[in-house]
This record gives sequence, structure tokens and C-alpha cells, in this order.
Amino acid sequence: MSVTTILQSAKQAAPALGRANTKQKNELLALIADALETNSNRIIEANQVDLAKGTANGLTKGLLDRLTLTQERIQGLASAVREIIALPDPVGELVRGRTLANGIRLAQVRVPFGVVGCIYEARPNVTVDIAALAIKSGNAAVLRGGSAAEQTNKVLVSVIQSCLAGAGFEAAAISTVDEYGRDGAVAMMQARGLIDVLIPRGSANLIQTVVTESKVPVIETGDGIVHLFVDESADLEKAVPIIINSKAQRPSVCNSLETLLVHEAIAQDLLESLIPAILDAGITVHGCWRTQELIDCVPATDADWATEYLSLDLSVKIVANMDEALEHISRYSTHHTESILTESIANADRFLLEVDSAAVMVNTSTRFTDGGEFGFGAEVGISTQKMHARGPMGLAELTSTKWLIRGDGQIRG
Amino acid sequence: MSVTTILQSAKQAAPALGRANTKQKNELLALIADALETNSNRIIEANQVDLAKGTANGLTKGLLDRLTLTQERIQGLASAVREIIALPDPVGELVRGRTLANGIRLAQVRVPFGVVGCIYEARPNVTVDIAALAIKSGNAAVLRGGSAAEQTNKVLVSVIQSCLAGAGFEAAAISTVDEYGRDGAVAMMQARGLIDVLIPRGSANLIQTVVTESKVPVIETGDGIVHLFVDESADLEKAVPIIINSKAQRPSVCNSLETLLVHEAIAQDLLESLIPAILDAGITVHGCWRTQELIDCVPATDADWATEYLSLDLSVKIVANMDEALEHISRYSTHHTESILTESIANADRFLLEVDSAAVMVNTSTRFTDGGEFGFGAEVGISTQKMHARGPMGLAELTSTKWLIRGDGQIRG
Repeated sequence: MSVTTILQSAKQAAPALGRANTKQKNELLALIADALETNSNRIIEANQVDLAKGTANGLTKGLLDRLTLTQERIQGLASAVREIIALPDPVGELVRGRTLANGIRLAQVRVPFGVVGCIYEARPNVTVDIAALAIKSGNAAVLRGGSAAEQTNKVLVSVIQSCLAGAGFEAAAISTVDEYGRDGAVAMMQARGLIDVLIPRGSANLIQTVVTESKVPVIETGDGIVHLFVDESADLEKAVPIIINSKAQRPSVCNSLETLLVHEAIAQDLLESLIPAILDAGITVHGCWRTQELIDCVPATDADWATEYLSLDLSVKIVANMDEALEHISRYSTHHTESILTESIANADRFLLEVDSAAVMVNTSTRFTDGGEFGFGAEVGISTQKMHARGPMGLAELTSTKWLIRGDGQIRG
Repeated sequence: MSVTTILQSAKQAAPALGRANTKQKNELLALIADALETNSNRIIEANQVDLAKGTANGLTKGLLDRLTLTQERIQGLASAVREIIALPDPVGELVRGRTLANGIRLAQVRVPFGVVGCIYEARPNVTVDIAALAIKSGNAAVLRGGSAAEQTNKVLVSVIQSCLAGAGFEAAAISTVDEYGRDGAVAMMQARGLIDVLIPRGSANLIQTVVTESKVPVIETGDGIVHLFVDESADLEKAVPIIINSKAQRPSVCNSLETLLVHEAIAQDLLESLIPAILDAGITVHGCWRTQELIDCVPATDADWATEYLSLDLSVKIVANMDEALEHISRYSTHHTESILTESIANADRFLLEVDSAAVMVNTSTRFTDGGEFGFGAEVGISTQKMHARGPMGLAELTSTKWLIRGDGQIRG
């Protein structure tokens, strides 16, 4: 089969999934959750092939870990699918509606996109996640999961396709183009009219390639150079746990803190209070010259301000005032998440108004920018673009809308 | 000044407009409406230069007409700006909000995109329209209006820029790159990070170029091969006026009817009832072979089904059943507007569910797919894509959103 045939088959399979009611989609998801468990040995066998190849190719320990599926992790994948069953169906949700003066009834309702494409790297859990989210939102999905996980993804998709066929849907509704390597990804980016929206997930490099090369509309899920500004009125008893939580609770993810900005009037007190917690958490501070005068730290260079560490490193800059903090954020932020710690309502309001990011916070940990924490129940990714979806994306963000217009013979005057 | 400087200046000017309150923006719009009127002679002078050039270059009568500004039309532009003053400000509108179990208050509010780009052709009214809509929604705008209207647009933008400066905003907030010709358009399509969203308005050719070449996110405003299906249960007394209104009320626009699909059981009755109205309206029917057996008409070829006439031509096809109608629509529709005329609730529901278009109608004229008719008060265009906006776009569609997250020391467990 050619890539184009796969894409066309996915498009043809999409309407039936789009029209399926919630009960039918949930029954399909239940089949998939069960099939993942009953096929776990087969999945692990395929995964072993990928792991052996990855080891031979010198993949890093971190990548090998993300690639690995165990009985326990497969159980986790099945549980994630079952959690999606419990979520409300976004399809058919009324977004807006009104009756016009002439009696025409307008209703804007959510409808599936049609075919969702996802390009990602070496994380077999994304295969199951995106397939389940696509099914629940009535979409077909075409997946390109990276050559490192090719054998694992092949088995996962074949398990899902068996369930689709068993539930009376076309198997092609969830397809992979992994076997075509990079050509598969290129074909997806060219597939105007076949793929309705493309979501890249993975490294900044992968995302940039897709965003700039794709002719299909893309939802950009970007990296996070996340800032936290401690103003002069901040409450130190709140500040220390928020900073440590923002940085250290899970440093490898996009909503973790990278740069701490501190008002000069509170810098000495704050940094003194922070030191024990920083040492305790194993955080390495990269400090500006003023920070260097107050605490032991690695001298920060300009490159630090533009770095998403994704590790227990933290750059710290002392600023003269809020203007300087906002300028720094405006220059270096990736528009993901920014937080202010303040007891001043005026400063909080100014920060909320002026910072142009997907999530802007007052007195909370930056780790809260998360679909699960927002109550979405599942997360497709975190959008850092401004079109269609911004911030954590749940099932609703995998839908478009349609205007239903009901009349009784009206014509336009 | 280079194109890049213009784009950078627009980006720098955007935040002040984004933060301006409704009163400030409305005062600016009132200044612009007045200035259009007081500068009407200057505008008409520049317009005469464009018209003379257009005549020399052999522009069609239609294009010359769209290019022409008269005192009356300038008065119309000023009135349109004043109507935008009266519309609600979309910025700050609460989209969703909730308080999480941990006490964090989440609010998703509308915020301006930042910089909106518009690429269009030889319609100076779009210059004023987009500028006013951008200002009301807190956005800066960069405009590329086509060489045919270059002198007119230059004066219009300079009038608007004087008003911006007079109201304390940076003049660069509304800018044109017309002087750079095609290079200006190319620079806009490359301007990731400077332009947040690009809206092409004009010919199918222009839109296709922008959609496939742009590296900036695009909202596609497409053409309409609009279908109307008359099923066997349709009420002929409603059907005739709806069909004539859909086709003939304003045939040159995207929501006018192009293809009439008729169930075979009602074909003879319907076409007989239609003939006098068709003759009266001056409509030319391009009929399928079965239509040719019933009425005098031009034989339709396959090309007719794929043609947006934008004239008093109408293709007519007799179908055996609703399946055939839906298949025809699925094959030839541009996903703009489709309508069914029926008295059967089952057929209406099936049509509303299965037709995948921005607007799907029952028993109304297709001409109702319109921002004004929907009560939006102003229309940026009609989106035929599925991301961000679908169907008529008002001020809300010129905004993104931002999550405001207010806490009191919460950290993630």
C-alpha cells in the first residue's frame, strides 16, 4: 500500500467514526483497553526488537526508558484508555446558539475534525493515547511514531485495528505510516484535503520542522522557557515552596520553571530563605552578576536565559523593578507559562494583563499548566500557538464546529 | 524602511492596542470615521490615479468597479467603522472558568492575537474594514492590498495612521507593505514570530498560494460551490422562492447557490414550478441528462459540478435518492454552505449530521451564511477551514485566548 492509499483510507473511514454515538465509541475503547492487556506478550516481544535495535544504535538511557513497555506500563496504557471512556463526548456539544429575528434557529455545535495526524518520536504510549483521544472525539488518526518504536507501534496499531474491525468500523480509521520512514512524515505534511490537522509532539527540532514545512494546518505544541517573578511584596512562606515545586517536582517537563526573576528589594531575603531548599532539592543555580554577589552559584551567560534546561538547573536574575521583569519575559519567554508571586493586587493584575502566554499565574506553581490539573481528564498536548487552541488541549480541542441552521422557508431580503 | 522593519514596528505597536480599553479603542475608531470623511477628496484623488492605471492596464469592468471610491462609498466606509464602534469588545470576554478542588481559580479569557496580516486584492474597502476590525479586537494589522489599489490604500493607511498617532498609539499599528509588491506578500508569509495569523481574501488562486506557501498560521476563507438538495417531501411553495433567492439575490458572492440537486420523485413538479421564476430572474440552467428531458437547458458537463459560477448560472442534477445527493455533495462541495429542502424530520437530521460544511441548513436560503445575518455585526470573512474558525468570522474570531490562573500558594502534589 502507498502512503497516499493509507491517507485516503483513513479519510474514507473517518465519517463513520464521526457519526458514531458515545456508546459505540466507548464500547470500541473498552475493546481496545482489553485487547492491549490480552496482547501484552505480543506487544512486549515487538518492543524487545525495538529496544535491541535502539541499544545497538546507541540510544540514550532516557530514550530507551521512554521506549520501553513492560506488563505494568501496558496495564497503565489500558487504564488510560478506560479513563477516556469516562470523559464526556465533545461531539455535538452546543457552543453557541440563538434564534434570529426572522425565526431562523442557529446552533454552533462541535464536530470531529475528520482526520487528525500526529508526528512524534519513540514514545509508544503516544500511539495509544492519540488513538484513544481521536476515537473519543470522532476522528480518524494517522500516526507517524518514529523509526525507533516502529515494531512496537506496528503491533499496537494492529491491535487497535482489530478492535475497530470487531466493532464494525473500518480498520484504516487508525493507521500508521511508520514503514515509510521520513517519507511518511513528508507525505503527511503535504496531505491537504486528506489530513485536517497535524499535531507534532516531541523535540523542538521536530516541531519546528513540521510547523514550517507542513501545508496542512498544524497545532504547535512547543517547549517552555517558563518564568516566575517574585515581586517585592511576595510572601516568602508561599514563595519558597512554589519555586521549589515549580522547578523540582518534575524538571523534565515543559511546565517546569527555568528562570526565576527576583525584585531587588526582596532578593537577599528570598535567596537566603531559598538556599536550604535548593540544596535539599539538588538544584544548580545559574545566577546573574547580582545573584552571584548574594549566593554561591554558576555564573549565568546570555545563553542561560534562552535555555529550556529540563533538568535541575535554574537561572536566577535580580531585576530592578517589574518593568525589567516584564521585558525579560517578553524577550525570552516561549509563551507557555509565566507566574508572579505577589501580595499586590495591582502587580498581579498588570502581570495577568501584560504577559502574553498560554497560562499566566498568580501565586501558584507553574506545574499547574496541565490538562489533568485543569480537569480536562486527558491531554493531547500543550499548545503554544494562538490559533484554535492555546494551553492544555483536551478532547474539545480535537474538534471543529459546524453551524446548523434551521428555518421554515426564510429567504434573504 | 524595509519590510522587516515594518513588520517589527507593527509587532512593537501591538501590545498598547491590545491593552487599550473599549472606550479608548472606540474613540480611535470615531476619529478614523471622521477622518475618512474629511479626507475624502484626497482619497478620491489617489483613487483616480489607480483607476487611470487600471484602465490603461485593461482591468475588467468588474474589477474597476470594485476599485472605485466615490464620496458616497467613502461615506459608506465611515458608516461601517461607526457600526464597529457599536459592537461589543471581544477582548476580556470570559470563555470558560472554574475553581479547582485546591482553590485555584481558572479563567480562559479572549485576548488579541497580536498582529493580524491580510493579503487581498484591489478592494480598498477591505483596507478600512480590516483596520477597524483589528483595532476593535485589540490587534495591530499589516495589510497587503494589491498593486492595483496601491495609491488609494496608501492614502487610506496614512489617514488611519494619523488617527492612531492622534489618539496616542503608534502609527505602525496599522501598516501596509504594498510598496514592496509581491515581495511584501512573501515577507508576510515568512514572518513567523512577527505576524500571528494571516487572512487571505480574494480569488481562489490567491488563497491557495497563501495557504500552501505561508509559514505563518492562516485562516482560509474559501470559495463556495454551494448545494441545495430538494428531497421528495419538500414543500414546493417554500422551495421556489428559496432556490431563486439562493441563486439570484446576489449571484457574485460565495454563499450563493451553484448546484441544485433534485430528488427524482419531485423533479417534474419542482422544475415546472421553477421555470417561470428562472426565466424571470434570468437564470441559465446547466442540466444533467435527466433535467434535459424535462426542461430546456444547457447540457451540463462534469466541469459544471466543480464550478463556482458567481453568475446567474445554475447547474441542476436529478438524483435517485438522498444517498446520491450526499455523495455528490461530498465529492464537489467546498464545505462552505449546503441546504436541504424537506418536510421530513429524519431527512433533515440526516443531512445536518452527514454534510461536512461550515453551514448546513434546513429549509432556508443559502444566502444566510453571513456574519451580518448571524448577528456578528461585522464580518472578517467566511472561513472554510476547520481550525480556529469555521463559517462567518466576527470580532471574536480575531482573538486568541489566555488562561488566567489565580492561586494562594498552591503547589502540585
